[in-house]
Amino acid sequence: MSIQPDVISRLKEAAGPHGFTEDPQDIAPHLVEWRGRYQGRSPLLLKPRTTAEVARVLAICNEARTPIVPQGGNTGLVGGQIPFDGEVLLSLSRLNRIRKLDALGMSATAEAGVILAELQREADKADRYFPLSLASEGSCTIGGNVSTNAGGVNVLRYGNMRELVLGLEVVLADGRVVDLLRGLRKDNTGYDLKQLFIGAEGTLGIVTAAALRLFPKPGERVTAFVAVPDVKSAISLLHAMQEATGGLVSAFELMPRPGLQMVLAHISQTHDPLAAPSPWYVLAEATSGGDVQLQDIIERCLVAATGNGVVTDAVIATSETQRAALWRLRESLSEAQKYEGGSIKHDVSVPVAAVPAFIAEAGEAVVKLIPGARPVPFGHLGDGNIHYNVSQPKDGGSTAEFLARWHDVNAVVFDVVLRMGGSISAEHGIGQLKVADLPDVKDPVAIELMRSLKAMLDPLGILNPGKVLLPGKQ
Amino acid sequence: MSIQPDVISRLKEAAGPHGFTEDPQDIAPHLVEWRGRYQGRSPLLLKPRTTAEVARVLAICNEARTPIVPQGGNTGLVGGQIPFDGEVLLSLSRLNRIRKLDALGMSATAEAGVILAELQREADKADRYFPLSLASEGSCTIGGNVSTNAGGVNVLRYGNMRELVLGLEVVLADGRVVDLLRGLRKDNTGYDLKQLFIGAEGTLGIVTAAALRLFPKPGERVTAFVAVPDVKSAISLLHAMQEATGGLVSAFELMPRPGLQMVLAHISQTHDPLAAPSPWYVLAEATSGGDVQLQDIIERCLVAATGNGVVTDAVIATSETQRAALWRLRESLSEAQKYEGGSIKHDVSVPVAAVPAFIAEAGEAVVKLIPGARPVPFGHLGDGNIHYNVSQPKDGGSTAEFLARWHDVNAVVFDVVLRMGGSISAEHGIGQLKVADLPDVKDPVAIELMRSLKAMLDPLGILNPGKVLLPGKQ
Repeated sequence: MSIQPDVISRLKEAAGPHGFTEDPQDIAPHLVEWRGRYQGRSPLLLKPRTTAEVARVLAICNEARTPIVPQGGNTGLVGGQIPFDGEVLLSLSRLNRIRKLDALGMSATAEAGVILAELQREADKADRYFPLSLASEGSCTIGGNVSTNAGGVNVLRYGNMRELVLGLEVVLADGRVVDLLRGLRKDNTGYDLKQLFIGAEGTLGIVTAAALRLFPKPGERVTAFVAVPDVKSAISLLHAMQEATGGLVSAFELMPRPGLQMVLAHISQTHDPLAAPSPWYVLAEATSGGDVQLQDIIERCLVAATGNGVVTDAVIATSETQRAALWRLRESLSEAQKYEGGSIKHDVSVPVAAVPAFIAEAGEAVVKLIPGARPVPFGHLGDGNIHYNVSQPKDGGSTAEFLARWHDVNAVVFDVVLRMGGSISAEHGIGQLKVADLPDVKDPVAIELMRSLKAMLDPLGILNPGKVLLPGKQ
Repeated sequence: MSIQPDVISRLKEAAGPHGFTEDPQDIAPHLVEWRGRYQGRSPLLLKPRTTAEVARVLAICNEARTPIVPQGGNTGLVGGQIPFDGEVLLSLSRLNRIRKLDALGMSATAEAGVILAELQREADKADRYFPLSLASEGSCTIGGNVSTNAGGVNVLRYGNMRELVLGLEVVLADGRVVDLLRGLRKDNTGYDLKQLFIGAEGTLGIVTAAALRLFPKPGERVTAFVAVPDVKSAISLLHAMQEATGGLVSAFELMPRPGLQMVLAHISQTHDPLAAPSPWYVLAEATSGGDVQLQDIIERCLVAATGNGVVTDAVIATSETQRAALWRLRESLSEAQKYEGGSIKHDVSVPVAAVPAFIAEAGEAVVKLIPGARPVPFGHLGDGNIHYNVSQPKDGGSTAEFLARWHDVNAVVFDVVLRMGGSISAEHGIGQLKVADLPDVKDPVAIELMRSLKAMLDPLGILNPGKVLLPGKQ
């Protein structure tokens, strides 16, 4: 596609001073994602600073039927933020003000371009806690977090981004601004329209600001790295910890030994926290108020679990440095896999109780398909959300050859997921990567409703085309 | 309106054996709500037992353009469940199976007609906890809870019904069934369609079943009845308790002395738990796992708060009987007001920090409007949700005359609410009671989007007409 020069010049004017670039070098970093898996192209990058500017931009795009792709921190993993077909690119990065932080009211209003880590820091300064936490928190933005309904490590306790959103400000496809920002905990005045835009990946409207829940700052945080003999034991431990604490476990991450080995081999300044190897590990974290004596409770729980064979060894972090080192093992897993050749990734969820069977059956199916392939299932066990990554065989073939099997591997893994009533996209979304798969896994009436919503909110199809839903009949 | 006899007979057939009644005596209890504030009429009450029967009923209604009003436990307070204009009435009460209860997966799937208290009991038997709790829990149903996005006393810790819903099964206006029941904690496959139907009061589709989150059963529960000198002190106490426990406070209910006096005067077997009267009281509850020594923490917190004047007296329940007696004081407030003549009610929310100013300013405005009127503001202080009820003057005029001022009183109270960025319907919804007010308090673009959604999902306007949105331009 190509965009008329007069539209380009109107858009440049609408985006305000310093609000655009046509320089290919400036645009280039926005066209690839960090793993290099996607490559887009765009003649024009817009960087408005205000909601009013975004509204003007969209009104022009809609009138000229010019497609536009919104982008936050460009950390998405499914290509949702990439202009694959020469669309105008809309970066929200300069809408980056925290408009309000109400410590007493436990809420903050942040613009779309605010970086997640910055919001976390500002909440912390006000003696509050914003719990969304994911590996890319230093670059990803609130707008992207809302638009992808981001998950991460604390969903178990605090929910997805959707559960943290009290209100939104959204620019519609035709440039109308809808103010749903009222940051009340309880407001049953009509349909909850903000829900439409959360997790819609910028295909139904452009989120420009969000009112978000804050929480009491945890007074105590206990982080344990635990060796367990199998995945079933990990689940038993989760339930034991939840019962002992009454639901204070905030993160419960599963790691397999092969994954830990990759981290220890390739990531600097990492070491195995336990003396003997174990087939599986859990990184568990619980938080509470300062008066709860949480560490005692977790220690008693781990001792009891060791007594009945659910746990074989464990270490509790005794300093913030140790805690960071334990988390580094978990957060480096994806990166470490890069050094082992190609990795075919899945972001799936199944009911928690089904995770052991899922890992066993998916493993069998993958190795049958590609002998020697190395599954590294890890992730948010507490939510049933497994990042089922498969590294290429140690001694076999080229990375390109292995990655060419991406969809074949997907097919066998998704087959197990669906058989167990699971989801083929637990937290990363659909984007471009899974857009062709969606009709196969979703109720057909649900797909019809999605199409109706898209037609209602973006009748000319200018918003992030080709993402989430393909045009026309699928 | 009147319904064609052939449509009546087709609907009777569609609703299945024993699935209907035309007997006015059987229908009568479904046409009034418990306070007697609303009176409807309907020629036909349908009571299908299955989703397929509901689907057939709606297909016929849609084809014949016959309006239909869904009803759960008939406990709604805004007239949402009443057929005001002779519509067919659809009771979901016989869709009352708990289809699944997955203790390990922490979820349950219940049909629309399951009574809330029954789900609470079944969860309890499985050593799990379903936290939604409200005064009408012995009669209200899961379908109604979903359709009104029910709130209640535990929202502070566990969220509204919306946050407890993992999935829904919905029958659309034209009889299509959409299966969104997959009860996963994380599922980002496309737009989250279930959100459309939560809190839509049956105007966009009929909820027939819901997959719901369960929680670890609290091992310890601490319930305290606390005297505070003013509302600001109550908020200070809330923050102190949240910080001490790290967010374990599940209920934090405000009561004024005049309200407590009404309860003590009119409700049998109640007594003042504290020796001296106090202008304000808080009923606070916190829950945790069995190992947390929660009572010690709360006691220390109350002692400290007494030391700095935030608390003047307090009692902690030492048995389940005492706990029930404390809750009875709170839950009887609405009933007790009935014995004091007319009561004009508001279900509003404002930012928590604004509650003291709201209560002061609304009180002044109301008493200026009706000298001698007695405001009894009570409710969910932790969420900023105040049931701002106003009893008629003790010695002045008839109840009918007082109630005739309903909208005048609303106007002055809503004025204060809106000035403080609050909501005129925090948890009860819009129904018929507030349908004319909605356009005044909502962003005009939001009202347009609501109309578009209604047109998309119920193009012929058969679903609960006249509720939430009035037809045509408002």
